[in-house]
Amino acid sequence: MTPIVSVVGRSGSGKTTLLEKLIRELTARGRRIGTVKHHVHGRVQVDAPGKDSWRHRQAGAVAVSLASHAELILIRDVPAELPLPVIAHRLLFDVDLVLTEGFRSAGMPTIEVSRAALATPLLCGPGDRLVAVVADWPTGAGVPQFGLEDIGGLANFLERRFLEVSAGPRVELLVGGQPLALGPDAEALLVRALAGVLGRNPGRLELRLPAEPASP
Amino acid sequence: MTPIVSVVGRSGSGKTTLLEKLIRELTARGRRIGTVKHHVHGRVQVDAPGKDSWRHRQAGAVAVSLASHAELILIRDVPAELPLPVIAHRLLFDVDLVLTEGFRSAGMPTIEVSRAALATPLLCGPGDRLVAVVADWPTGAGVPQFGLEDIGGLANFLERRFLEVSAGPRVELLVGGQPLALGPDAEALLVRALAGVLGRNPGRLELRLPAEPASP
Repeated sequence: MTPIVSVVGRSGSGKTTLLEKLIRELTARGRRIGTVKHHVHGRVQVDAPGKDSWRHRQAGAVAVSLASHAELILIRDVPAELPLPVIAHRLLFDVDLVLTEGFRSAGMPTIEVSRAALATPLLCGPGDRLVAVVADWPTGAGVPQFGLEDIGGLANFLERRFLEVSAGPRVELLVGGQPLALGPDAEALLVRALAGVLGRNPGRLELRLPAEPASP
Repeated sequence: MTPIVSVVGRSGSGKTTLLEKLIRELTARGRRIGTVKHHVHGRVQVDAPGKDSWRHRQAGAVAVSLASHAELILIRDVPAELPLPVIAHRLLFDVDLVLTEGFRSAGMPTIEVSRAALATPLLCGPGDRLVAVVADWPTGAGVPQFGLEDIGGLANFLERRFLEVSAGPRVELLVGGQPLALGPDAEALLVRALAGVLGRNPGRLELRLPAEPASP
């Protein structure tokens, strides 16, 4: 089961901005992230090249997909809002972590973003599954709190709490054929270094190094 | 298993136009249609209201979804083009029939569209699973052939061949509590009449009529 974590907050608290930074950070660490966001403004316009890709949908198809060797796009009717676990496991397959923007009432582990400038108390109360707060004021929420810019700290928290067990190590380092244990910090360092070298997310790594020459 | 039928044809043969008409016709008959089309022009631009719905994707998320109570939109990476059955059963769930535009090499039952004006032979040969032809010239293909405008005939063919068994009757007519057998033509007539009355696709119907008064 892919872990699902909701990022919630009042309007203007910076949910989307935080999510962007968090997605970038976790992706740089080799994590595959899926996301879910509400769309409430009526139908999204999909402006495809050639403009005719959605003629099937306009003709009445309840589910339309566009497929290529690298990307898949789906637009479909649903009889009611699908539960998050259905979206996560049916559509967002092959990811390590699903982050939702909003969906506070879905009952998933929740991170709340809050800003002093809004001068409002936390949205989450005893009925919520608050696991962390990201804020620039002392919320006293009784859960781990991270500064608005402490994306690394928040990513570490998420990895330790939701990803380490299910995902296992991302880097297997074998020296002279023998696996060498790596702590999460060493792992993250290697993944980021390779992401820099490759110019892309390296995904899972297996590093094979020759054995050191035996001491003379 | 949802039946999958491919509509293929040479460039300019009118695949999209035929599919539009066919989707409209089958939808009017109460069938739920899903479709798959290639997209080969690079990434489709999704122009969402507010323009920020896809910031998650731009930040690196491998799978992004937008959910509302009526519609679900998904854009995701795939490691390679997903097989049609995976797309059909994983993403196009809850439909009666999946129609693909192209995908001739996927080995699904295939309908070829062909126009005399193109002055070319049929694309499909012995290695294809050709089940019908839609054309304005005598192709002699040895499978049922329909005129370019005979959408009703083609829809009847598809319903009889791919939908009657798997979908079962769409209309159950009970007279005086006793079910009455209906042929597909009578069924289609009732569904279309009710679609006209309701101004929408009625879906499956159960009509309950009181018994006729007993003969005196």
